[in-house]
Amino acid sequence: MTTSAVANEPLAYRQPEGSAPRESQSVKRPLVLPPGTDNDKFQRFIEEIASVTGSENVTVISDEAELYHDNYLDPGKAHDMFHIVYKTRLVSSAVVAPRNVPDVQSIMKICNMFEIPVWPFSIGRNVGYGGAAPRVPGSVGLDMGRHMNKVLEVNVEGAYALLEPGVTFSALHEYLVTNNLRDKLWVDVPDLGGGSIIGNTIERGVGYTPYGDHWMMHCGMEVVLPDGTLIRTGMGSLPSPDEDSSLPPHEQPPNKCWQLFNYGFGPYNDGIFSQSSLGIVVKMGMWLMVNPGGYQSYLITIPRDEDLHQAIETIRPLRVGMVLQNVPTLRHILLDAAVMGDRKSYTNEDRPLNDAELDAIAASLGLGRWNFYGALYGPEPVRVAMWQVIKASFSSIKGVKFFFPEEMPDNVVLQTRHLTLQGIPTMTELKWVDWLPNGAHLFFSPIAKVTGEDAVAQYEVTRRRSEEFGFDFIGTFIVGMREMHHIVCIVFDKKDPDSRQRAHRLIKILIDDAAARGWGEYRTHLALMDQIASTYNFNNNSMMRLNEAIKNALDPKGILAPGKNGIWPKNYDPSMYKIEI
Amino acid sequence: MTTSAVANEPLAYRQPEGSAPRESQSVKRPLVLPPGTDNDKFQRFIEEIASVTGSENVTVISDEAELYHDNYLDPGKAHDMFHIVYKTRLVSSAVVAPRNVPDVQSIMKICNMFEIPVWPFSIGRNVGYGGAAPRVPGSVGLDMGRHMNKVLEVNVEGAYALLEPGVTFSALHEYLVTNNLRDKLWVDVPDLGGGSIIGNTIERGVGYTPYGDHWMMHCGMEVVLPDGTLIRTGMGSLPSPDEDSSLPPHEQPPNKCWQLFNYGFGPYNDGIFSQSSLGIVVKMGMWLMVNPGGYQSYLITIPRDEDLHQAIETIRPLRVGMVLQNVPTLRHILLDAAVMGDRKSYTNEDRPLNDAELDAIAASLGLGRWNFYGALYGPEPVRVAMWQVIKASFSSIKGVKFFFPEEMPDNVVLQTRHLTLQGIPTMTELKWVDWLPNGAHLFFSPIAKVTGEDAVAQYEVTRRRSEEFGFDFIGTFIVGMREMHHIVCIVFDKKDPDSRQRAHRLIKILIDDAAARGWGEYRTHLALMDQIASTYNFNNNSMMRLNEAIKNALDPKGILAPGKNGIWPKNYDPSMYKIEI
Repeated sequence: MTTSAVANEPLAYRQPEGSAPRESQSVKRPLVLPPGTDNDKFQRFIEEIASVTGSENVTVISDEAELYHDNYLDPGKAHDMFHIVYKTRLVSSAVVAPRNVPDVQSIMKICNMFEIPVWPFSIGRNVGYGGAAPRVPGSVGLDMGRHMNKVLEVNVEGAYALLEPGVTFSALHEYLVTNNLRDKLWVDVPDLGGGSIIGNTIERGVGYTPYGDHWMMHCGMEVVLPDGTLIRTGMGSLPSPDEDSSLPPHEQPPNKCWQLFNYGFGPYNDGIFSQSSLGIVVKMGMWLMVNPGGYQSYLITIPRDEDLHQAIETIRPLRVGMVLQNVPTLRHILLDAAVMGDRKSYTNEDRPLNDAELDAIAASLGLGRWNFYGALYGPEPVRVAMWQVIKASFSSIKGVKFFFPEEMPDNVVLQTRHLTLQGIPTMTELKWVDWLPNGAHLFFSPIAKVTGEDAVAQYEVTRRRSEEFGFDFIGTFIVGMREMHHIVCIVFDKKDPDSRQRAHRLIKILIDDAAARGWGEYRTHLALMDQIASTYNFNNNSMMRLNEAIKNALDPKGILAPGKNGIWPKNYDPSMYKIEI
Repeated sequence: MTTSAVANEPLAYRQPEGSAPRESQSVKRPLVLPPGTDNDKFQRFIEEIASVTGSENVTVISDEAELYHDNYLDPGKAHDMFHIVYKTRLVSSAVVAPRNVPDVQSIMKICNMFEIPVWPFSIGRNVGYGGAAPRVPGSVGLDMGRHMNKVLEVNVEGAYALLEPGVTFSALHEYLVTNNLRDKLWVDVPDLGGGSIIGNTIERGVGYTPYGDHWMMHCGMEVVLPDGTLIRTGMGSLPSPDEDSSLPPHEQPPNKCWQLFNYGFGPYNDGIFSQSSLGIVVKMGMWLMVNPGGYQSYLITIPRDEDLHQAIETIRPLRVGMVLQNVPTLRHILLDAAVMGDRKSYTNEDRPLNDAELDAIAASLGLGRWNFYGALYGPEPVRVAMWQVIKASFSSIKGVKFFFPEEMPDNVVLQTRHLTLQGIPTMTELKWVDWLPNGAHLFFSPIAKVTGEDAVAQYEVTRRRSEEFGFDFIGTFIVGMREMHHIVCIVFDKKDPDSRQRAHRLIKILIDDAAARGWGEYRTHLALMDQIASTYNFNNNSMMRLNEAIKNALDPKGILAPGKNGIWPKNYDPSMYKIEI
């Protein structure tokens, strides 16, 4: 059942033995079969799917080689390139790439018929949170991005784009450049430009311009429900006067307000399709930022570790008062250091770096122990007014220094943030994953109040625990409208089971540490979904019971992403799918 | 069954005859019984409810006098003070005022037991959209605001409030003033300050500061589900470390990020509780705007009717580019005129006013045919920079004039908007309802693209139809992030059946006119919910089928607000509840 490379690692789930291969078998046997599915049924299922999409769009994952390459630009589409469990623990039985919306609808119907679970992903670069891997081993991966990757519209007047799942941040930016629209419209981008805009947004990822809350800035979705029904949310539900009865629903001309007004009429349902297993988003609108007519990025270096408290207390009133116009970040020195070199380039010590060593690294890079990256937007008088207030506020912290990018031409991080904060995607920050050899990462992402007390408390616990488990603390505070996404980057060596298992143990204990203090994570890796969902347990898990009721009503056979974010359909026994370390 | 005053008007629904009153009867027989409920069952139901809330919190609506006063400050809690159908057509059988969350939970359980529908409202001032009236006659009105009216918290650091349903915009503003917080925090307010913040927000009402999209600015809800279960959304689902097992769920100390971060973990469910019949919101967080450190409101008068096109084309790039920082309005002359005098003070003609007369009114008031109210926020250099751009842009319209409030001390509308746009609630704009004697109004509220073409087209159709039905056009364009809420105020004489019926016919034809052009309404009066819902019919009403699936899963007996926004539970036959003109 498992390949020899991982034969010594435990399999926590039961794999049915299946029937012997048929003589006429045209389909390979997968590494892992879907639950409750023998090889014969799987063969018939794959033949049925291939009859819809063409066999060239179906890949059975029959051996490790099929997991593809393990790199960001060509990620494994059937597993997690940064696998925290062993490589073949969370893998798809097959990957199917629908060519269009009707393919997706047909696939859903076939999956319902065979009761085989399906796990959609857009690009597979959900790095740090599980990549393309499914929660239930043997699920069929749905590669939404391979063919469905068009920018359907960029509307300059309305400042929006209508996208398919395969459109990356880089691709949309490139589209704007190619069409001479970049001087008018900006795309908000996360740290890496290679991910899907739809994937990132429905997982509620963030970026760094004033449009950094991607979910807030989406507008209008087209969604395939678990039974294959196609809906359009918001104003999209109101047909265009150009409606053409000779066209299928997904090709109907859109309502002209679909990407302009989110809420439509009646219950506003978009949210149930985020971090969700209730539908597959096949089109989505995103609001684009109008060129603000002026831009200036900056870095404020904050010298001492213990300045964290005062820095956050300085940031809060500025951010909530909209003087800090964008989503700025306060980054720990090692995050910047890791972009500029691997661990070996700084130290030969195996133990986590101590404060003296961190001070030395900061000094060598001309940075602080904490470094604040922000930007000013608008015409010069506006920027000048904002900068005066920001500078005056931060100047109360002893030893802070202020830099514009032109003053630090060799600082890769500042030069990168200068691009990111104006919506120009980059790949530079991939680099920090190489802090360790065979570097992979896992994000621990608690939400934090924007107070010195909470920031210091989260930093204290997460750093102490990281060091207990033999890791350096690498992290950043991303400052939203009223809170911070505290992102702790747990970098481990994915080829070293000990390193992997320490990372896994670390994050499990951090989740418990956090919950005991009332902190919760906004998003997580597959392997931690059940644990985190169980911390959101107010009133006897009443929210989970609501989620389950909706799930069972819309997906009675539990075929769409079972187990996603801890929501198990009624026909699944979660104890069968526990992920052990 | 009907009182003599309305005996000549049709009853479109069937009222069961019920049994004869019992001798021991302690409860009055209502004007209208709940569906499928005889008087005997109703008596038992009311006794059961009274045993929970105390009989002093239960009012059976046994005659018209119980409908209370018909005025905004003391609206009828069992019907619609601006009833477009006859007064007793859409009324509750009884009104119950729960004292607290457990009362609400108990009431839901009793309603499930008796299968009696319940219609929650907060204050009853949902004017123009149905007030406190239920969609199904004889429903039990749930007066959420009478007792549950506390400001539970105002958090200055996080700039938010946690509220109960009975807190009005005026009350929260007053709270800030009383606690010397008004110099720090502003409440975004709609035109009238007397409505419930929770009610307005979950119906997706809007205001006029930069925080004008109330739904976007809510954060965290506590909701009673149809079966009585209590949930907290977002971070509220994660218990506080101060959790106290001796307290009931609704009294548990909240998670400290509940009002700071909306999305929590997993599906983001808040939206399904807006414009919805899936739960009763008992607590909600609202983000408050931090005093921006400077404020200047202004009026731009736009002389000619045909300037509408150019005005909207001027507004769009400024708004989408965030130079217009708030939700500004472009108001038709008659909306302003109606605030300053009734129809008789301008004309003795019965027919709708013509262009020459409208020009004359504009001239007499020193206003344009269209009038644009906006505001600048921030320190002086920011305001100056924005104002320069705004003035330069609007100056391309011939004859525009620019005014600050100090230049028009006698202009009631400008003086009022000066308050509204800085979050100070008023009641002044109630006045325009008195345009006609016994004035009542009905809002027709299509969403419009921010283009001259769409604005002109919507104005043309709505004005023409208004005049066909004998009404003056009174309306305003409220400019959101990417679209406009075009609000057409249909003022009618509620004591004149002919006037009422013309208004009703007018809005029905406007809904069809709009749908044929691809325009849809964002919100509506009870009497139009089915019609509007039926226009959002993409792909064979797939969104409605989704809504029904969720409704039936969460509320299998269909007791919570059946028929709300066209969503009928499976045990209801909508044809029984058609509202005829």
